[in-house]
Amino acid sequence: LLTLTDVDGPVNPDRGPEPGGERLARAAAEAFAARGFHGTSTRHVAAAAGMSPAALYVHHRSKEELLHALSLAGHRRVLALVRDAVAAVGADDPVALLGDLVERFVEHHATEHVSSRVVNYELAALDDEHRAEVAALRHEIEEVVRDVVRRGVAAGAFATDDPDLSAAALLSLGVDVSRWYRPGGRWTPAEVAAHYRGLAPAMLGVSGGGTSG
Amino acid sequence: LLTLTDVDGPVNPDRGPEPGGERLARAAAEAFAARGFHGTSTRHVAAAAGMSPAALYVHHRSKEELLHALSLAGHRRVLALVRDAVAAVGADDPVALLGDLVERFVEHHATEHVSSRVVNYELAALDDEHRAEVAALRHEIEEVVRDVVRRGVAAGAFATDDPDLSAAALLSLGVDVSRWYRPGGRWTPAEVAAHYRGLAPAMLGVSGGGTSG
Repeated sequence: LLTLTDVDGPVNPDRGPEPGGERLARAAAEAFAARGFHGTSTRHVAAAAGMSPAALYVHHRSKEELLHALSLAGHRRVLALVRDAVAAVGADDPVALLGDLVERFVEHHATEHVSSRVVNYELAALDDEHRAEVAALRHEIEEVVRDVVRRGVAAGAFATDDPDLSAAALLSLGVDVSRWYRPGGRWTPAEVAAHYRGLAPAMLGVSGGGTSG
Repeated sequence: LLTLTDVDGPVNPDRGPEPGGERLARAAAEAFAARGFHGTSTRHVAAAAGMSPAALYVHHRSKEELLHALSLAGHRRVLALVRDAVAAVGADDPVALLGDLVERFVEHHATEHVSSRVVNYELAALDDEHRAEVAALRHEIEEVVRDVVRRGVAAGAFATDDPDLSAAALLSLGVDVSRWYRPGGRWTPAEVAAHYRGLAPAMLGVSGGGTSG
């Protein structure tokens, strides 16, 4: 299976660096985000990436395989991001961990709003096997966030009737940013992320939370 | 301009009741939600609604016009819903108003998750004039929510550094439910709505908020 180079560098150990990979990934994400997967032709993606359709087919045998590669790369980045937050802060300070987790997650979905829209809203276009593979990654991401909430509850730092539903709300705050965020609008990604970092503890019953003062 | 009958009854005063209108609206919403606007043919929508393509074209001259009608009906319902909450509760009790607003908004996006996905995620497929018309309705919906937050801040009931960004977070909690909610899952629409009702005051700095206890 061929995979795409993501913006952090090549993720395909079999092929080594692919100079056209990043450009192709960006072109595909922008086209899928603007017109939807089904409204985008492989020919259009190839033209946007400055390559011939034949050259694109060297990398990806079908449009669905291109979406699959984008979806894997996007979800792997987010999984690494939430795991990094847990590793960096540790579980001893649930409020700081929650804040870091939410801030990183939200900022990613604002900064990478184009690819995040594709990754979150085009799952139905994947074939069954690929969708199951991506669903497993999504489940891992959700479990990291749920675990942070559950541990905070167990430690007495958080209060919620339903930790998993509160975790779903936290995830929604981030994912939905990729739907509405546009560069050049009222807020930078860092401003949205900082504000939402302030909302998260309050949502989990931490007194003194909130965004004022 | 022909418009669709929505689930609450006919919205086209020129034509009177259209028995096929609701079925057509549901078939179109389900098809667009499952395969995306660009991945759905008018022929497919007609077949799903049990009518001929010619019969569909009597109602809608194009697939885009069908999406436009769905988008108008969906946004008008949500605008009515948020206005009803304000009218029912009034501005004298900001915490109760916020709770009602969030509960109704979230429950709608869970119950009507199929049409809500189309309405929220296919805006790019509308032509410029129709997209501007729908954007104006979205702006009105957002302004109702922002106004509830701003008034609560002015009354000293809420505390937030940025009322409009907090309002964006509240809207995200509802809209994103239409992405992830599936019937037969862990939570009913009413359960999600009740839990999120509990989150909203805490997000606006109301002490004693949260969902526990």
